[in-house]
Amino acid sequence: MLSKSQISFVKSLHYKKFRKEHRLFIVEGIKSVSEYMHSKYLIKELFFTEDANLKLANLSQILKVNQITYQDLTRISTLSTPQNVLALVQLPEDKDIESINFANTFTLALDGIQDPGNLGTIIRVADWFGMKQIICSEDSVEAFNPKVVQSSMGSLSRINIHYLNLSKTFKIAKIPIYAAMLKGTSINKTEFKNEGIILLGNEGKGISAELLKQVDHHVTIPGFGEAESLNVAISASLFCYEIKRNYLK
Amino acid sequence: MLSKSQISFVKSLHYKKFRKEHRLFIVEGIKSVSEYMHSKYLIKELFFTEDANLKLANLSQILKVNQITYQDLTRISTLSTPQNVLALVQLPEDKDIESINFANTFTLALDGIQDPGNLGTIIRVADWFGMKQIICSEDSVEAFNPKVVQSSMGSLSRINIHYLNLSKTFKIAKIPIYAAMLKGTSINKTEFKNEGIILLGNEGKGISAELLKQVDHHVTIPGFGEAESLNVAISASLFCYEIKRNYLK
Repeated sequence: MLSKSQISFVKSLHYKKFRKEHRLFIVEGIKSVSEYMHSKYLIKELFFTEDANLKLANLSQILKVNQITYQDLTRISTLSTPQNVLALVQLPEDKDIESINFANTFTLALDGIQDPGNLGTIIRVADWFGMKQIICSEDSVEAFNPKVVQSSMGSLSRINIHYLNLSKTFKIAKIPIYAAMLKGTSINKTEFKNEGIILLGNEGKGISAELLKQVDHHVTIPGFGEAESLNVAISASLFCYEIKRNYLK
Repeated sequence: MLSKSQISFVKSLHYKKFRKEHRLFIVEGIKSVSEYMHSKYLIKELFFTEDANLKLANLSQILKVNQITYQDLTRISTLSTPQNVLALVQLPEDKDIESINFANTFTLALDGIQDPGNLGTIIRVADWFGMKQIICSEDSVEAFNPKVVQSSMGSLSRINIHYLNLSKTFKIAKIPIYAAMLKGTSINKTEFKNEGIILLGNEGKGISAELLKQVDHHVTIPGFGEAESLNVAISASLFCYEIKRNYLK
């Protein structure tokens, strides 16, 4: 049985403040937890119920393993219907801009994205299309928010996410910046070459005026109907697709 | 002030059973309600607060108009933060398969889609790319569910959605059926010609075995990473984009 202090410790990790303080975040579900086990992430503690059917061979690397009742799991879970396994995973170290490689690759940059489901979907899309990294402005929703972790479906374990000052980053990266805009060159007429940053804006406000000054290419996904805008995760996926389209088998 | 019976009537429309019974659904927010005003839909009753800033000229077509307090609005709204205007809109008539045109156009077909946010996003994407109609299997989430209406952001007012037996529909439509699959011909190598049905499956189970027998083309969006699948709304958008890609200006 979990003690009151164990329960309140895990529950504190539902909140950003305590995730930062303890350098831990929560991953739930056997499938996702397995993906984190086989990733660069370190699982510090694991809670599972009797019917979780875990392979014990994989558990030796985990510091603490606790079999708990389903009732206790419901007390610490972030889900309305918990999924038998809950892991506390170590937050990655923050990286300096200078140590991040932007050359010969494409990076997604998100300016003030707010919806956890959108960020989770973008992480999943980036992983699908083999993008290795995403950079987010410091006011974007946190990637280790349980809703983001959940909607990224394990893909977060394979993508590097950095929270940075985007303006400063663009200056240092010195590669072409392509902004997803309502007006600009059509995406299928844009030559993406071999490297660049794809900049996508906030769900309501778009890209901030300050960052727009640093943009090299305004790129648009032309519409055929009367809809005013596309969801940011949809735009991200169309950019990833168009960049990779010529390399599809 | 709203009477108890008015409040309970509007609140009943939060549920599918009563939407079907009264042939009404709820649309909220000045922007969305305006789009329904300028659509084929009929607004039967409107509730608005003092600060809603409605143009009265547009209200003459609406049978009942009620100015209410914000407190009353919170009692009938489907949103946690109501948006000053709430409309009761007439449900469209169900259509016979035979009366729907499938020739010389592309139609999205959704087999058992469950997530309201996914359906709302697909409706918005279809509208963006000028698709005119979506057909859903009868076990799919209802398009007039408040969460679908909300996430479609007004696009539902411009797209025809029909709930049908898909197998029967495919037999009658007699046009090529393209299924979004994990294995198949790459989407960029597929020739879509001038008409077809794009079939997308349930979030977890994919397309049902029965429907797969009627499919002409298995089409896949090739992945480059380790992600197991793409979100269904993302897949839908990549199909719409690829179909329209050659016509982009």
